[in-house]
Amino acid sequence: MSIMVQENVVLTNVDQGIWLDNYSLNPTQPGSNWSINKRTLRGGLSDGIDVVTVDNGKLAVDLLPTRGMGIWRGQFAGKALGWESPVARPVHPKFVNQNERSGLGWLTGFNELICRCGLSSNGPPGKDTVLDNNGNPIETDLTLHGKIANIPAHHVEASANENEGLISVTGIVDETMMFGPQLQLRSTLQTRLGSNSVTIIDEVSNLAGQPTELELLYHTNIGRPLLEAGGRMRAPVAELAPRDEVAAKDIDTYKDIGPPIPGFTEQCYYMSLAADSDDQTIVLLMNAGGDFGVSLQFSVAELPCFSMWKNTQASEDGYVVGLEPATNFPNPKTFERDRGRVITLQPRQKYQTSLTLTAYESAEEINRVSMHIANMQGDATLGMYRLPHKRFSPQ
Amino acid sequence: MSIMVQENVVLTNVDQGIWLDNYSLNPTQPGSNWSINKRTLRGGLSDGIDVVTVDNGKLAVDLLPTRGMGIWRGQFAGKALGWESPVARPVHPKFVNQNERSGLGWLTGFNELICRCGLSSNGPPGKDTVLDNNGNPIETDLTLHGKIANIPAHHVEASANENEGLISVTGIVDETMMFGPQLQLRSTLQTRLGSNSVTIIDEVSNLAGQPTELELLYHTNIGRPLLEAGGRMRAPVAELAPRDEVAAKDIDTYKDIGPPIPGFTEQCYYMSLAADSDDQTIVLLMNAGGDFGVSLQFSVAELPCFSMWKNTQASEDGYVVGLEPATNFPNPKTFERDRGRVITLQPRQKYQTSLTLTAYESAEEINRVSMHIANMQGDATLGMYRLPHKRFSPQ
Amino acid sequence: MSIMVQENVVLTNVDQGIWLDNYSLNPTQPGSNWSINKRTLRGGLSDGIDVVTVDNGKLAVDLLPTRGMGIWRGQFAGKALGWESPVARPVHPKFVNQNERSGLGWLTGFNELICRCGLSSNGPPGKDTVLDNNGNPIETDLTLHGKIANIPAHHVEASANENEGLISVTGIVDETMMFGPQLQLRSTLQTRLGSNSVTIIDEVSNLAGQPTELELLYHTNIGRPLLEAGGRMRAPVAELAPRDEVAAKDIDTYKDIGPPIPGFTEQCYYMSLAADSDDQTIVLLMNAGGDFGVSLQFSVAELPCFSMWKNTQASEDGYVVGLEPATNFPNPKTFERDRGRVITLQPRQKYQTSLTLTAYESAEEINRVSMHIANMQGDATLGMYRLPHKRFSPQ
Repeated sequence: MSIMVQENVVLTNVDQGIWLDNYSLNPTQPGSNWSINKRTLRGGLSDGIDVVTVDNGKLAVDLLPTRGMGIWRGQFAGKALGWESPVARPVHPKFVNQNERSGLGWLTGFNELICRCGLSSNGPPGKDTVLDNNGNPIETDLTLHGKIANIPAHHVEASANENEGLISVTGIVDETMMFGPQLQLRSTLQTRLGSNSVTIIDEVSNLAGQPTELELLYHTNIGRPLLEAGGRMRAPVAELAPRDEVAAKDIDTYKDIGPPIPGFTEQCYYMSLAADSDDQTIVLLMNAGGDFGVSLQFSVAELPCFSMWKNTQASEDGYVVGLEPATNFPNPKTFERDRGRVITLQPRQKYQTSLTLTAYESAEEINRVSMHIANMQGDATLGMYRLPHKRFSPQ
Repeated sequence: MSIMVQENVVLTNVDQGIWLDNYSLNPTQPGSNWSINKRTLRGGLSDGIDVVTVDNGKLAVDLLPTRGMGIWRGQFAGKALGWESPVARPVHPKFVNQNERSGLGWLTGFNELICRCGLSSNGPPGKDTVLDNNGNPIETDLTLHGKIANIPAHHVEASANENEGLISVTGIVDETMMFGPQLQLRSTLQTRLGSNSVTIIDEVSNLAGQPTELELLYHTNIGRPLLEAGGRMRAPVAELAPRDEVAAKDIDTYKDIGPPIPGFTEQCYYMSLAADSDDQTIVLLMNAGGDFGVSLQFSVAELPCFSMWKNTQASEDGYVVGLEPATNFPNPKTFERDRGRVITLQPRQKYQTSLTLTAYESAEEINRVSMHIANMQGDATLGMYRLPHKRFSPQ
Repeated sequence: MSIMVQENVVLTNVDQGIWLDNYSLNPTQPGSNWSINKRTLRGGLSDGIDVVTVDNGKLAVDLLPTRGMGIWRGQFAGKALGWESPVARPVHPKFVNQNERSGLGWLTGFNELICRCGLSSNGPPGKDTVLDNNGNPIETDLTLHGKIANIPAHHVEASANENEGLISVTGIVDETMMFGPQLQLRSTLQTRLGSNSVTIIDEVSNLAGQPTELELLYHTNIGRPLLEAGGRMRAPVAELAPRDEVAAKDIDTYKDIGPPIPGFTEQCYYMSLAADSDDQTIVLLMNAGGDFGVSLQFSVAELPCFSMWKNTQASEDGYVVGLEPATNFPNPKTFERDRGRVITLQPRQKYQTSLTLTAYESAEEINRVSMHIANMQGDATLGMYRLPHKRFSPQ
């Protein structure tokens, strides 16, 4: 009998001068077909991007350590998970100027299946008051969705444990500056061999000697082939409000997916979700036939705010729906602070989250999850606002 | 008899993981001395710049796929084509912050023989109204001369066909973002073996599901040794207006090249040109002796606006004259839109241009081209404005 | 007898296509243990950073050609020279957006032992009036501490001369743009084998055809282990003023180093210094025991303005004191211009400075330097302002 792989490989460690341009970790067991594969893109706006493909044999995802440990895209049962953004390929942060276009520059690099928004702030561009080096308040322009997706990890390692049937990749990303926020993300993506899910386990630490603020949102984006007219979203909604009038207009069909419509204006629905006794909740997006779907499982104690982003524009413009578990709603940070939804981390304090993405290829599985969601829902509904509500979004 | 080269080599293709650090395509025929050579610059602000030298045996140009397929410089009959910018070497886009210095940051990377300005806008920094992700109009700052010169091509290929006596390089550059313009440039630079000219064939496509705007200008810049006091510009001018009072002051000598003058303030002359029956026109710049020159040939149907940029500053500050065929004049985009000179491309619509740069090393050739221009001119003159005119530039 | 090394090695020369990824220059003499070692960091925000370690056998420094020839850190007698910034590793300029956070983006890359501030401006973010391409005055936002620390050298060479007992590294950095400042820094770091000091010899040239302005400050930053409560600064102060009320509050103890205090607000003291008959002056920072110290020696003719930056924050936030010899005080450039402290360089004019950093590991050496400073001080004191003074800083 051959010895099973139980290996830990450092792919990047700036301090130790380690950086592997290409690397492949493969099974020792006959019949096993998992792999962890690292390559580096060259040329165009992708030049210098590290891609780490984590494939458990059934579900594969392309991790982007260079873009703050985001997940570019997935592959499941021969089908793509993700969406087709007008930005066709991963964009290296060196080409992203977040100040561009009045603070919307983040959109020049946005095309991931899962893209973190944060860590010091997320939401739309807007003014905020911060302290300068003299401790004086200055007004500054926050840019769309913060910095973390455009910071490369300085430490990346891959692990495989065939005995336990687990493979994983961990990255560490620093969002720090002198006289400013000092937040560190330690993110592990882990998956069980042959399973239909991956779990992201994140830990955000305040490295500073003083308290700091945290906003964290997982911008999870699904397009074709899963997304199609007739598809549905399912979630155990406790409270819900449309973000604005445009969303309010279609409040009755917010769970239903429409066809691509050129010029469609995005609609956002903000929710708090019911959960199991252990705070776990699930949201599900399925295709029209109900036999292809994706769910997100997370804790409402860790990620109490959930946004659904319906952006069913023409295919060329990004036909996509976002499922966005978060610590806050993606409003201006000043608004979220007023509502008590910005987290304050004390020195050395850590904030932990766990998010599991699961893909389904049968009506049976999807029915089971739908049922579970319906059970969680029960009579949990506290408030369904047909119009924007000042607790949820600015009027 | 040896088989002639008929080859197509992909130098860069991000999607297929192709990127050649160095590459050389050479003739198989004895006596033939063309070449296509690709290298990568390292260090300083040029770090990571791809240079593709296309040499037809008589005329050579250094292409910059990393800077939107611009042409850094040429070499013809032992003489340099181009100019000496205060920016001494090609600058990688990763070092250019276009928002710098109130939107003039483009100037920190400007030193090419031919540099495209566009694609969504060109002209000076200024306010414009665009739509944000919610479809709401927001005011944004356009930066000098747009983005295309600071976007690297994601696909580059070289071709040689010795039978037809043609060599070429093609690149594809995407100027796209989510909730914004989605313009794609496909540019081919092609030259006949042993000839004294290169032709740029560009195709700009609107990849979006909705109409979008296009402004495209070819900033073609000539300095020493061609440029010198006593040199002349020739063009079949149908209409002309100085851009501003500074240009108006010297309207009588706008075709004449002066010596370098420290502190000289740039003078711009805006023109529409007469053309042949097939819409082709020619502009010519010659040295004092009339035996060294460069011409640009293009279609006034494709590029109806022509600007002459006289910037005969001290050599150290950039002694240069620009010949700038374009879809518009390099005014604020809002002004050009009002004058109907901003192109609207429908979804999947393409805009094609062709521009031929020819170098001359004899008075005979230059006289022939001058004569041709004079013939085209004929009695085509419609309007010669001695003062700035509101149809051409803001007052 | 073996031949001694007398070598000059080009590590980077963009024009000649020279770039050495790794290189080591080592002694030929037995018993000699100097070295010059070049490596390239990969991954994280340090990706692409060149580090050149210059080790004279006793004192070693890590030079950063990629960050304008700054000195990341030193190593002396087994102790680190430098400080622990919240920015843990060298940051490549491609990741620094100086416009970020209202012009404070420089702070996302700040962690050096010696970081130059300049060349066209230094000091806090603020408005200034510059000329655009048309020679028209426009208002622009200067960003914190200027550009030079975020521009990579395009030429780097290492030299060793065992006969003379000297090793050195020279770099050339261009801070230039079309229609803007054209300043070139030629910097040599040189050290005597086995000595306890390094000397920086800088030459800044105005490459333009017209006069230009220069501001140059050496942000020299010391933290642990040298910095500690009970440490002292010594300098031959001719005049002194606190920058602001916060500094004025502790004017009586400005020379004394306190412990780390969470939330401590930085205190700046601006001084002019007395000097020897050859204009040389010295400032000294020592630990509590007076047996570990660092001095800076420079000419008050070259660098007439000296700032002490006390930033004894919590260790996590950057416990550090800056000793900052400069051509000006780090005020808004408009203020410094009004006070006559902005240098104007004529075309081709050069400005030269020399700065020697010396480390000490014994009370005897430190006492000798302290005594020398006390002698220079003599009765040189001209003015000690207990409150901010309008000659030194804005009120």
